[in-house]
Amino acid sequence: MTSNDTERFQRGLKKLKEIDGQAGENVIQSLKHFAPGLARYTIEYPFGDVYSRPGLDLKFREIATVAALTAMGHAAPQLKVHINAALNVGCSVTEIMEVIIQMSVYAGFPAALNGAFTAEEVFLERGLIEKPTSKS
Amino acid sequence: MTSNDTERFQRGLKKLKEIDGQAGENVIQSLKHFAPGLARYTIEYPFGDVYSRPGLDLKFREIATVAALTAMGHAAPQLKVHINAALNVGCSVTEIMEVIIQMSVYAGFPAALNGAFTAEEVFLERGLIEKPTSKS
Amino acid sequence: MTSNDTERFQRGLKKLKEIDGQAGENVIQSLKHFAPGLARYTIEYPFGDVYSRPGLDLKFREIATVAALTAMGHAAPQLKVHINAALNVGCSVTEIMEVIIQMSVYAGFPAALNGAFTAEEVFLERGLIEKPTSKS
Amino acid sequence: MTSNDTERFQRGLKKLKEIDGQAGENVIQSLKHFAPGLARYTIEYPFGDVYSRPGLDLKFREIATVAALTAMGHAAPQLKVHINAALNVGCSVTEIMEVIIQMSVYAGFPAALNGAFTAEEVFLERGLIEKPTSKS
Amino acid sequence: MTSNDTERFQRGLKKLKEIDGQAGENVIQSLKHFAPGLARYTIEYPFGDVYSRPGLDLKFREIATVAALTAMGHAAPQLKVHINAALNVGCSVTEIMEVIIQMSVYAGFPAALNGAFTAEEVFLERGLIEKPTSKS
Amino acid sequence: MTSNDTERFQRGLKKLKEIDGQAGENVIQSLKHFAPGLARYTIEYPFGDVYSRPGLDLKFREIATVAALTAMGHAAPQLKVHINAALNVGCSVTEIMEVIIQMSVYAGFPAALNGAFTAEEVFLERGLIEKPTSKS
Repeated sequence: MTSNDTERFQRGLKKLKEIDGQAGENVIQSLKHFAPGLARYTIEYPFGDVYSRPGLDLKFREIATVAALTAMGHAAPQLKVHINAALNVGCSVTEIMEVIIQMSVYAGFPAALNGAFTAEEVFLERGLIEKPTSKS
Repeated sequence: MTSNDTERFQRGLKKLKEIDGQAGENVIQSLKHFAPGLARYTIEYPFGDVYSRPGLDLKFREIATVAALTAMGHAAPQLKVHINAALNVGCSVTEIMEVIIQMSVYAGFPAALNGAFTAEEVFLERGLIEKPTSKS
Repeated sequence: MTSNDTERFQRGLKKLKEIDGQAGENVIQSLKHFAPGLARYTIEYPFGDVYSRPGLDLKFREIATVAALTAMGHAAPQLKVHINAALNVGCSVTEIMEVIIQMSVYAGFPAALNGAFTAEEVFLERGLIEKPTSKS
Repeated sequence: MTSNDTERFQRGLKKLKEIDGQAGENVIQSLKHFAPGLARYTIEYPFGDVYSRPGLDLKFREIATVAALTAMGHAAPQLKVHINAALNVGCSVTEIMEVIIQMSVYAGFPAALNGAFTAEEVFLERGLIEKPTSKS
Repeated sequence: MTSNDTERFQRGLKKLKEIDGQAGENVIQSLKHFAPGLARYTIEYPFGDVYSRPGLDLKFREIATVAALTAMGHAAPQLKVHINAALNVGCSVTEIMEVIIQMSVYAGFPAALNGAFTAEEVFLERGLIEKPTSKS
Repeated sequence: MTSNDTERFQRGLKKLKEIDGQAGENVIQSLKHFAPGLARYTIEYPFGDVYSRPGLDLKFREIATVAALTAMGHAAPQLKVHINAALNVGCSVTEIMEVIIQMSVYAGFPAALNGAFTAEEVFLERGLIEKPTSKS
C-alpha cells in the first residue's frame, strides 16, 4: 500500500468504527487471516469511499441499508450488524421497526418478519426491549 | 365496503396523492378495470396502513423505499414512481443519488447503475438536471 | 381499533387458525411484544383480506404459496409454516413434493433441494414419512 | 440421440404443445439455430420429465408456475407464456388474478403489480377482458 | 427406467462422483427415501446432461457455479459442495477466493462476505488454511 | 483526487478498456454528467481493484461474471457488456453458451433462456452467428 491508500484505508477504518463499532471490526478480524484482500476492500470501498461521502446524513444511510438488507433477505448477519449501526448513529427502535414493517410492502411479509426477528435479537442484546416473561 | 373500510381507503388515497402524486393515481387507474381488488389493496395496505403510521418521517420512508427497490433490481416502474415520491416529500437530487450509489455496496454495481439511469430519467423529466449536449 | 377493523382482524385470525394452525399463532405471539403493528398486519392483510377472498380454493392458494416460497429461497421459516398449511387444507405429501420438484425448473436445483429438505422436516414431524433407519 | 432420448424428447414436445401451445414452440424455434442444446433441454427436462409426472394436476402445476414467476420478478417473458398456459389447461381469469394478488403477500406489491400488468396483456390479446375506453 | 435412462443416469452418477465426491453422494442419499424423483433428476439433468457436455472445461464449470451460488446468496449448502468441487477439479484456494471477492462487484459485499465464510469452512476442513490461533 | 487516486483510477480505466472496450466507456460517459461519483467508483473498485488483482486469469473472471449476471437475472444491460467482455478476453461462443446453459441448473430455465437471448444479440452484432433466414 502506498501512503495514499493508507489514507483511504484509515478513513474507512475510522468510519467503520464510528458506524458498526465492535461488530464491524469483528467481521474484518475474522476475514483477515484467509481473505486479507476482501477485508481491506470491505473497509476501503463501503466505508472509506461511500459512507465517507457528504450529501447524505449517516442516519439516512443506515435507514437505507436496513431497508435494502431486509428486502434482499439473504443477508441476516449483515442486517444484524446494520441494525446495531442504525442505533449507533441515532435511529430509534421505533424508526428501525418502521423501516422493517414498510418492507412488507416492497419485499413481502416473509422478508419483513425475518427482519423483525433479527431486530428483536439486537434490541434484546442491547437491553432496549424486554424479553416477554411468558408467551401465554 | 363498509363505512370503516371507506375511511381506511380514503386515508390511503390521500396519502398516495401526497406521496406519489399523479404517477401513483395512474397506476391505480390502470389496474381498476381488470384488477379492482389489487387496486384497492395497493391504496389500503401500503398507504392507508403503512405510510400513515407515525414514528418515521415520510422523507425517511422514501429513502427506505428507493434503497429497497434499487437493491431488489426487478421493479424499475415502481422505482421510478418512488424517486418521484422522494422528490415530492423533500429529498434532494443529491440525497437520492447517494442512496443509489450506496446500494452498490449491498446489491452490487449493476443494481446501482440501473437505479442511477432510472433516476436520471426522472431528473430529466422534472428538469432537475440538464441533458448533456454531447457525449464526447 | 374501530369495530370494523376488529371485524377484519377477527376474520383474519379465524382464517389464520384454519390455515396455519398453531404454527401461525406462534409467529403472531412472538411478534406481539415488540412489533404489535406488524403482528396485526400479518393477520389483517394476508389472512383477513387475501386468503379470505373468494375465487380461488384454499388448496390452490397453498400450492401457490409453497411454490413462491420455495422459488424465492430466503424464507425457510415461512415455507415450513406453509408446507404445514398445505397439508392442513388438504394437499397430499405427493402434491407438495411435486410442486417443490417443479421449482427446479423455474428457480434451479438448489432452491428445490432446500425446499425438499424443509418439507422432509415437516413430514417427519407429522409422522407422514419414516426416518430412514440407515443411510447405507 | 438414441431412440430412447427421442421418446423423452417426443413426450416433452407433446406436453409443451398441450400446455404452452404456439408460444412455447416459438421459444424453442428461436433458440434452435444458436443454442440447440438448450432448446432440447427446455423440452426434455421441464416438459418430458417434470410436467409429465403424475401426482399433480396440470392446473395445479400452472398455478405453481404463475406464482413462482410472479414472485421471482425477473422473468416477464416466461410469466406471459405461463399465464397463457394456465388458461390453456383450464384456469380462469379470476383464478390467475387471485394467484397474482396473493403474491403481494409473499414477494411484495411491485412483483404483484408487474405480474398483474403482464396478465392484463395476455387477457387483452385473448379477448378475455376489454380495453378500457378511457382512463378518466 | 429403460436401459437408456440407465445410461444417462450412470453417466450422471459417475460425473457427480468425479466432481462432488462424497458430499454429492450424501445429498442424493439423503433425498432418496422421500424424494426419489428429485434425487434421480439431480443426477440426470445437472450431471448426466449439463456437466457431461464438451465445450467447457470442468474447472471453468466450477468457477461459474461458485460465482452464481455466491451471487444468488440463498444456497449456502450447495455453495459448500461446489467449493469442494472446484478444489476437486483443480481450482486453487486463490482462484476460488478471487471469484468470491469479484462477486462483491456484482452482488454486493454481503453476498461476497457470506461466500467467503463458507469457503473458509471448506478450506479449514480440508486443512488448506490454518485456524488463526487468536483473534487479537 | 490526489496523485495516488489518479493511479488507481488510471489503472482501472486501462483495465476497463481492455475488458469491456467501447461498451464499458459508454456506460461511464453516460453516467458522468449526473453521477460522477458512481462513474469514478465503477472504474476504481471493479476495474482498478478487483479485475487488476493477480491470482485469476481474465478469462476465468469473465466466465464468473457471465455466470453471476445470468443467474441474478435482473441485470441484462450488464450481462450484454460482459458477454462482449468475455469474447474480448478470449472466451469462445461455445464456452459462453455453456456457462449460460449451466445456469439452468442453478437459477432455473427462465434465467438461462433470458441469458441465451442476450447472448444471441451480442453474437449477431459481432457477426459470430448468422440470423436464421426463416423460422420454419
